[in-house]
Amino acid sequence: MGDGRFDLITFGEIMLRLSPPNYERMTRGDVFDKRAGGSELNVASGVALLGLRTGIISRLPQNALGTFIKNRIRFEGVSDDYLIYDESPEARLGIYYYENGAAPRKPSIVYDRMNSSITRISLDEIPEDVYTSTRMFHTSGITLALNKNTCEVTTEMIRRFKEGGALVSFDCNYRANLWSEEDARAAIKNILPYVDILFVSEETSRRMMQKEGELKDIMKSYTLEYPVKVVCTTQREVISPRKHNFTSTIYDAQRDEFFTEKPYTNIDVIDRIGSGDAYVSGVLYGMLKYNDGQKALAYGNATSSVKNTIPGDLPASDLREIDSIIRNHQSDGPTSELNR
Amino acid sequence: MGDGRFDLITFGEIMLRLSPPNYERMTRGDVFDKRAGGSELNVASGVALLGLRTGIISRLPQNALGTFIKNRIRFEGVSDDYLIYDESPEARLGIYYYENGAAPRKPSIVYDRMNSSITRISLDEIPEDVYTSTRMFHTSGITLALNKNTCEVTTEMIRRFKEGGALVSFDCNYRANLWSEEDARAAIKNILPYVDILFVSEETSRRMMQKEGELKDIMKSYTLEYPVKVVCTTQREVISPRKHNFTSTIYDAQRDEFFTEKPYTNIDVIDRIGSGDAYVSGVLYGMLKYNDGQKALAYGNATSSVKNTIPGDLPASDLREIDSIIRNHQSDGPTSELNR
Amino acid sequence: MGDGRFDLITFGEIMLRLSPPNYERMTRGDVFDKRAGGSELNVASGVALLGLRTGIISRLPQNALGTFIKNRIRFEGVSDDYLIYDESPEARLGIYYYENGAAPRKPSIVYDRMNSSITRISLDEIPEDVYTSTRMFHTSGITLALNKNTCEVTTEMIRRFKEGGALVSFDCNYRANLWSEEDARAAIKNILPYVDILFVSEETSRRMMQKEGELKDIMKSYTLEYPVKVVCTTQREVISPRKHNFTSTIYDAQRDEFFTEKPYTNIDVIDRIGSGDAYVSGVLYGMLKYNDGQKALAYGNATSSVKNTIPGDLPASDLREIDSIIRNHQSDGPTSELNR
Amino acid sequence: MGDGRFDLITFGEIMLRLSPPNYERMTRGDVFDKRAGGSELNVASGVALLGLRTGIISRLPQNALGTFIKNRIRFEGVSDDYLIYDESPEARLGIYYYENGAAPRKPSIVYDRMNSSITRISLDEIPEDVYTSTRMFHTSGITLALNKNTCEVTTEMIRRFKEGGALVSFDCNYRANLWSEEDARAAIKNILPYVDILFVSEETSRRMMQKEGELKDIMKSYTLEYPVKVVCTTQREVISPRKHNFTSTIYDAQRDEFFTEKPYTNIDVIDRIGSGDAYVSGVLYGMLKYNDGQKALAYGNATSSVKNTIPGDLPASDLREIDSIIRNHQSDGPTSELNR
Amino acid sequence: MGDGRFDLITFGEIMLRLSPPNYERMTRGDVFDKRAGGSELNVASGVALLGLRTGIISRLPQNALGTFIKNRIRFEGVSDDYLIYDESPEARLGIYYYENGAAPRKPSIVYDRMNSSITRISLDEIPEDVYTSTRMFHTSGITLALNKNTCEVTTEMIRRFKEGGALVSFDCNYRANLWSEEDARAAIKNILPYVDILFVSEETSRRMMQKEGELKDIMKSYTLEYPVKVVCTTQREVISPRKHNFTSTIYDAQRDEFFTEKPYTNIDVIDRIGSGDAYVSGVLYGMLKYNDGQKALAYGNATSSVKNTIPGDLPASDLREIDSIIRNHQSDGPTSELNR
Amino acid sequence: MGDGRFDLITFGEIMLRLSPPNYERMTRGDVFDKRAGGSELNVASGVALLGLRTGIISRLPQNALGTFIKNRIRFEGVSDDYLIYDESPEARLGIYYYENGAAPRKPSIVYDRMNSSITRISLDEIPEDVYTSTRMFHTSGITLALNKNTCEVTTEMIRRFKEGGALVSFDCNYRANLWSEEDARAAIKNILPYVDILFVSEETSRRMMQKEGELKDIMKSYTLEYPVKVVCTTQREVISPRKHNFTSTIYDAQRDEFFTEKPYTNIDVIDRIGSGDAYVSGVLYGMLKYNDGQKALAYGNATSSVKNTIPGDLPASDLREIDSIIRNHQSDGPTSELNR
Repeated sequence: MGDGRFDLITFGEIMLRLSPPNYERMTRGDVFDKRAGGSELNVASGVALLGLRTGIISRLPQNALGTFIKNRIRFEGVSDDYLIYDESPEARLGIYYYENGAAPRKPSIVYDRMNSSITRISLDEIPEDVYTSTRMFHTSGITLALNKNTCEVTTEMIRRFKEGGALVSFDCNYRANLWSEEDARAAIKNILPYVDILFVSEETSRRMMQKEGELKDIMKSYTLEYPVKVVCTTQREVISPRKHNFTSTIYDAQRDEFFTEKPYTNIDVIDRIGSGDAYVSGVLYGMLKYNDGQKALAYGNATSSVKNTIPGDLPASDLREIDSIIRNHQSDGPTSELNR
Repeated sequence: MGDGRFDLITFGEIMLRLSPPNYERMTRGDVFDKRAGGSELNVASGVALLGLRTGIISRLPQNALGTFIKNRIRFEGVSDDYLIYDESPEARLGIYYYENGAAPRKPSIVYDRMNSSITRISLDEIPEDVYTSTRMFHTSGITLALNKNTCEVTTEMIRRFKEGGALVSFDCNYRANLWSEEDARAAIKNILPYVDILFVSEETSRRMMQKEGELKDIMKSYTLEYPVKVVCTTQREVISPRKHNFTSTIYDAQRDEFFTEKPYTNIDVIDRIGSGDAYVSGVLYGMLKYNDGQKALAYGNATSSVKNTIPGDLPASDLREIDSIIRNHQSDGPTSELNR
Repeated sequence: MGDGRFDLITFGEIMLRLSPPNYERMTRGDVFDKRAGGSELNVASGVALLGLRTGIISRLPQNALGTFIKNRIRFEGVSDDYLIYDESPEARLGIYYYENGAAPRKPSIVYDRMNSSITRISLDEIPEDVYTSTRMFHTSGITLALNKNTCEVTTEMIRRFKEGGALVSFDCNYRANLWSEEDARAAIKNILPYVDILFVSEETSRRMMQKEGELKDIMKSYTLEYPVKVVCTTQREVISPRKHNFTSTIYDAQRDEFFTEKPYTNIDVIDRIGSGDAYVSGVLYGMLKYNDGQKALAYGNATSSVKNTIPGDLPASDLREIDSIIRNHQSDGPTSELNR
Repeated sequence: MGDGRFDLITFGEIMLRLSPPNYERMTRGDVFDKRAGGSELNVASGVALLGLRTGIISRLPQNALGTFIKNRIRFEGVSDDYLIYDESPEARLGIYYYENGAAPRKPSIVYDRMNSSITRISLDEIPEDVYTSTRMFHTSGITLALNKNTCEVTTEMIRRFKEGGALVSFDCNYRANLWSEEDARAAIKNILPYVDILFVSEETSRRMMQKEGELKDIMKSYTLEYPVKVVCTTQREVISPRKHNFTSTIYDAQRDEFFTEKPYTNIDVIDRIGSGDAYVSGVLYGMLKYNDGQKALAYGNATSSVKNTIPGDLPASDLREIDSIIRNHQSDGPTSELNR
Repeated sequence: MGDGRFDLITFGEIMLRLSPPNYERMTRGDVFDKRAGGSELNVASGVALLGLRTGIISRLPQNALGTFIKNRIRFEGVSDDYLIYDESPEARLGIYYYENGAAPRKPSIVYDRMNSSITRISLDEIPEDVYTSTRMFHTSGITLALNKNTCEVTTEMIRRFKEGGALVSFDCNYRANLWSEEDARAAIKNILPYVDILFVSEETSRRMMQKEGELKDIMKSYTLEYPVKVVCTTQREVISPRKHNFTSTIYDAQRDEFFTEKPYTNIDVIDRIGSGDAYVSGVLYGMLKYNDGQKALAYGNATSSVKNTIPGDLPASDLREIDSIIRNHQSDGPTSELNR
Repeated sequence: MGDGRFDLITFGEIMLRLSPPNYERMTRGDVFDKRAGGSELNVASGVALLGLRTGIISRLPQNALGTFIKNRIRFEGVSDDYLIYDESPEARLGIYYYENGAAPRKPSIVYDRMNSSITRISLDEIPEDVYTSTRMFHTSGITLALNKNTCEVTTEMIRRFKEGGALVSFDCNYRANLWSEEDARAAIKNILPYVDILFVSEETSRRMMQKEGELKDIMKSYTLEYPVKVVCTTQREVISPRKHNFTSTIYDAQRDEFFTEKPYTNIDVIDRIGSGDAYVSGVLYGMLKYNDGQKALAYGNATSSVKNTIPGDLPASDLREIDSIIRNHQSDGPTSELNR
């Protein structure tokens, strides 16, 4: 488990997110809300908010935009110790544009992340001490997919973190606009031998990973084929872009047990982006703190549900809030309407 | 069909729309959102967004406000070739103030459009070539209602466009605050002999046009009494100011056929204004492009439904988006939650 | 009933309310919406909007913040004749921070009101003529709870207003973060002998006032134990932070009659704060204008329901709007979708 | 001097002022700042801020815009007792659009005030008691210029106020876009026999009033030809749209004395509109409070200079601030940089 | 001079410009102002505002950002007939981030324009008819500098426009962050044989073009070495980031005459970006309309000076405003302070 | 010099700063800009921006406001390791309201900081390790002045840091609204025996510290009476609230040398607050990095001058920017107008 300076280190791209306010469109209007986002930052941030020590490895341009992102990372309570700065003329921050949805209009995203500074990251830039500094390492399929270089670097990093004593968490996070199912499958199969905690959606299991049968059997199969210990699959029901239901299933291979709970219903979706990452953060918090699938499930479902109500990618709920949401969810009696 | 430089020319008043942001009230607050709007501009804009060439005939003050409107018209992809500028000291831009609703508070509008520059338009100001430049001409009952002069000018323009080979589209758009039912009925009966495509709500047919019986029979009756070829009637169900259902019926007299489809349900209403005009734009696109009532219906219902999610009067959905909304509406299977 | 210069005078703290816009969190973001609020100001403001003459007794710091509040009070149509200014170095305006909710996130409030200028108010500062200037006086349990001094001053003021011929209205408004149930019970029992119109929630009756049995019997009990003439209890059903149902029950002891009506359902909650005070204002208007429990109920339910759709503490609906909402609520037929 | 309920009553049009924020242009952008303004409101507001009791006679549409204006008038501390509401379908609020300047771009204004509700005001609507309620009455040439009706009504009002014992203050405020020099001269000559305090710029004296010679002689001439007691003329030096110098001269006919002081220099002009009205308010305060031309001059120069730093038409400086500005202006020693 | 459909066609990159509002920094804050900009768009827009018909050739991504830019181009009155859309997965819109300055802080820019869609433009995509459609063609050294491909394509386009009968205008616009002085010199020497109107700063002439001697001799030298007819050099004096002086010199080789005028002084700089392009637009307007160096100089100096007061890259002054600024600049007498 | 984990630790109150945007007034408007500020945070933040490791000791309420401040501290790159959270019901965050100035209106501040959480800080809450963790400790007279408790705690902390090997820096920062000159003098004399670097204005030296004579002699006197090694005095010339000149004098007692440089002139003051703290940060950086009075002076003058151009209390300039400003200030030749 490393030297324990960190509970969690993640690795991935951090982007500038630009979105028109309210329900305005990208094609119109005079302002963009300016935020930081990225799957692995979202996860590190969620775990930090819950009280653990987290950091992120990433590569940012050495300019004002990179500084903005660094500041925002720190604002979230995530360590910037392992940020690498790109001073080359090609240095750039990946961007994505996000527009809210309202039935029957779907939310939509335009990516402009090609050739961002992280795509030229080298293992040599990453200090050796990081591999033994943390109890857990997390990354996602997005990082593998960025380009060939990040795929190779990430695979090697996973190996080294494992060697350094960290648990390895991996979120498949398949994005068809980044790579093909074939490439994704091959790359992910390469790293599954090192993964302890796996996040994979039912659709990704079936289509990209070519699994068949019942969901529970599919989840279990990863633990049979690989030394994966925990498999997590979310169930999101999209009633409309502004109203979701959400729950998840966790399989603990060591106890050979499935954990579930009743869904959060009628979630008021203010900003859906990052709610999957918030789920990961809740589960990882549960595992790091309690090593208990049921608690991990409760934290994951609560952090994900409430993230939908928060503008931007990044979560903003501390432990007190999450604990109170879990209590309300599990309570049958009346609860106060307002936190005073 | 004219010389085909334009697919659609519309005629009507363009106003400045001022509205408090979010759910603030007109009676309070320090800012107004500043937008352009007007039924016939909304129609021309919707058709332009779908890829056809459109223009608008209107009369604007020769001042900074008129320039703002001209710029916004161009922003929408609508031609400003036939805008007329009023340099008189009386020149003014009509204004309307709009405030959002939330149950049990209804949306509300305050008009300040009297004596606007368009009310003093003269046929002499309109270049003769416009009448032969377009495949279709569209206007609405609002333009007839502005004052006696616009009623006369509009009637004559309809005649000339018809003569010039254009199809004539007309939206009854009865507004009780502009004129009486008697005046409206008389004026509209004057122009129905020239109308090819008629938009009329069931309530307007019954009250203002004094029709009785089944809706379908009412719709058909216009085609029996006048050379009207297509009659369109929308069905909007207002669940709350923020939640509507919507569909429509189209009657094609030449094929003697009614077209319908299942309603769009649980539309998230961000801004209801202009959704009727968006319907017109979808139908006219369908007719201009495919001359097919079923397609016109699908486009009309989709453009109207999605307009409700767009702030302001003006639509903002291009063909790709509308086609995707139609596909989703017609599909029974699962669809992606997000456009990436 | 005093000299009738005022229909209603209220007494209470007026605070600066700071809230992040939209669904942003207090812990993030760069701006606060800046508003005035406070239970008794909300009541005076609601009654003024409906057309009666109201004023408020309060104590404000003699600085720019106090001036802001004074200006806002006047903006609401409430008289500032009885505002007292605190020129001491300790002068301060109480503040509260409010954050919106969205399921499963509850709205939340952080108070910073200790030692505000009103807590050092003295009876000597209040002009004697106020006690005979008004038809009705209103205050709430919050004012009693601020500190020992306000409790004593308020109790004496109630006595004097009663003596001056005013009806006394009192809203229990129990706040557990301000005082204990025991202290509240004792203080309120001290003033109930002077109260004509009592607002008390079912939960407060049961817990703080230690009542048992059926709600109607509980309501009646106040009029049996004290010379209370009217008891009002609201029923709010919180479907989600953004969707409520609402109605109320009023008991008129003189007629020994209960008044009820069907609830307002699916209220779109934009800002829930102040909707209880808006209820009080509607009921007091009904009593002052018509002295009729059924009308008071109708006004109270309407003013409360619509307040939920208004940003900020303060109501913003005039008599025309409230009357129209009541008509819609009581009508079974179709109603227009839009106020033009 | 009337019954002294008011120190000052003014009469004039109150408009909605719409302006793009910062240095944006009217022809672009998505928002307008929404404010109230109008010469006579500005004067009443400035005098109220300094601590006297003021009111305004005006005519507003009976709609949400009229309510906004009424609320803002009260916010300023000005009485709304004499506002008249126009319930006719023609009711409208005059509007003006204002855009800031920056060298070499001048500020600019677009007016849309024709046919506003005040142009149809009738003497019958004005309660008789107003004429004996105040120590002073003020209006300006703008009110005379609106249309024939306001010219006649204003002239008669001036007569009645005079009769009722009020001092009459009049600001020539010549606006070439409202009327010709001939019409203005004739109308103003009609009222000069009733005027006690006259505000007239040097340019207006020379061009519109056709005076010649030295400024001081011109100022004196009004008091020789008419029973005018005090004549005030401002000297503004426009270094750039963002930098002005300002002072004024006052002639007191009874003492046959001219008052002057060194100019305020390098005024940071944030919003120039209303600084002339602020001057009037300072002078009238000085006369009402001290009946002393030197004090009136000091107040007028200070209120005008500081108004330039305030966004919007309306002043926002209370007596404490004005006194401190006067002290700083008259002091030669070092002054603190910051008010803590 | 082509078929005269256009007075001016320009070619260049159009970027998204993102800037923090007011004086906030890129490294902080939650919003970016979102604007369109690019040297050649700025020029086309300025000339369109003055009343001529202009268009732009550029290449935009086929996504919502590309649509935003297209809409903005049209808003400016510039034709979008020759925009080319990039549907490839690499499609991207170049971005630049701009931050305002205030002494002693300089304005600063961060570019993120590498690999934008225009860098992959091909001559085949440009319709042949464009080369004979216009009286003048304009581009700048920035377009040459983007990459090798744009350098080649631009050079060939210049050749074809010349062949098609258009005058060729070229602004050296040397940017050290895009290419070396050697590369710039070589590329520009390649195109100078085709250039009619040349814009080159004194510093660029001396350093990049390696000229020596007096400025006037340097300007003349271009017309001796190449068939250049007009050479324009601006003189900007930066007093502070918020205060500039500006004038220019134009040499007309055919008349062998230099044109100058007294500088605009104490320009209030709100946004300096694009003021060089505005200069070009004024000069080109003067040449296209009057073919007169003195008039071109007056228009260039005025359009440039006033652009500094306009937020964003794009100018916003129509002919009426520019003419009035020129009149004020040339007048010695008093001028009105305000445009009413 | 401690264990060197930190270069600088500061101690002081951190407040919420609320200010109306642009030039709006506290008494009006609907929004406040929400920022963090406080003299010692400003210093720690400035030094962190320049590249050193800094932290702050303070006491914050355990609520959402405290979290906001903590996040902002981290955003600035300052360590939150030594923040103490107040969970008592009295917990509150000090607030100050700030309004911009424009000649002749001065900036103004309203404080609401009494009884804030830091006033109840106890030495026991501060971890012992902090005293040996840093090379330098800094605090100011404001912290001494908050109340008796902070005065005692601060004095003891200074003693312990000194004992722990840290250099002690102290800024007199006399605030007449917090304490009397007598109290300040007594408290400061208590700590001067421990101070290494002293910041004191000329006015404070003369009035509060009762020094007389030439400035240089006064500065020197501190080093003669106490073991103070470095004395720094700033010279600010306030031309207007928006235009300042600035320089300073540093006396190095060990070298017995005075350091000065020519002033920064015509500084564009966007926000003056915190520029004194920025000066301290620049000087401390110079001393910590180079232990060189001349360099300290250059850094102090540059960081202070540029801070005036940054909205909010907190500086925002990194080393690259400060170095470039120093180079420009020291250069006589032309410098680029824009950082590209």
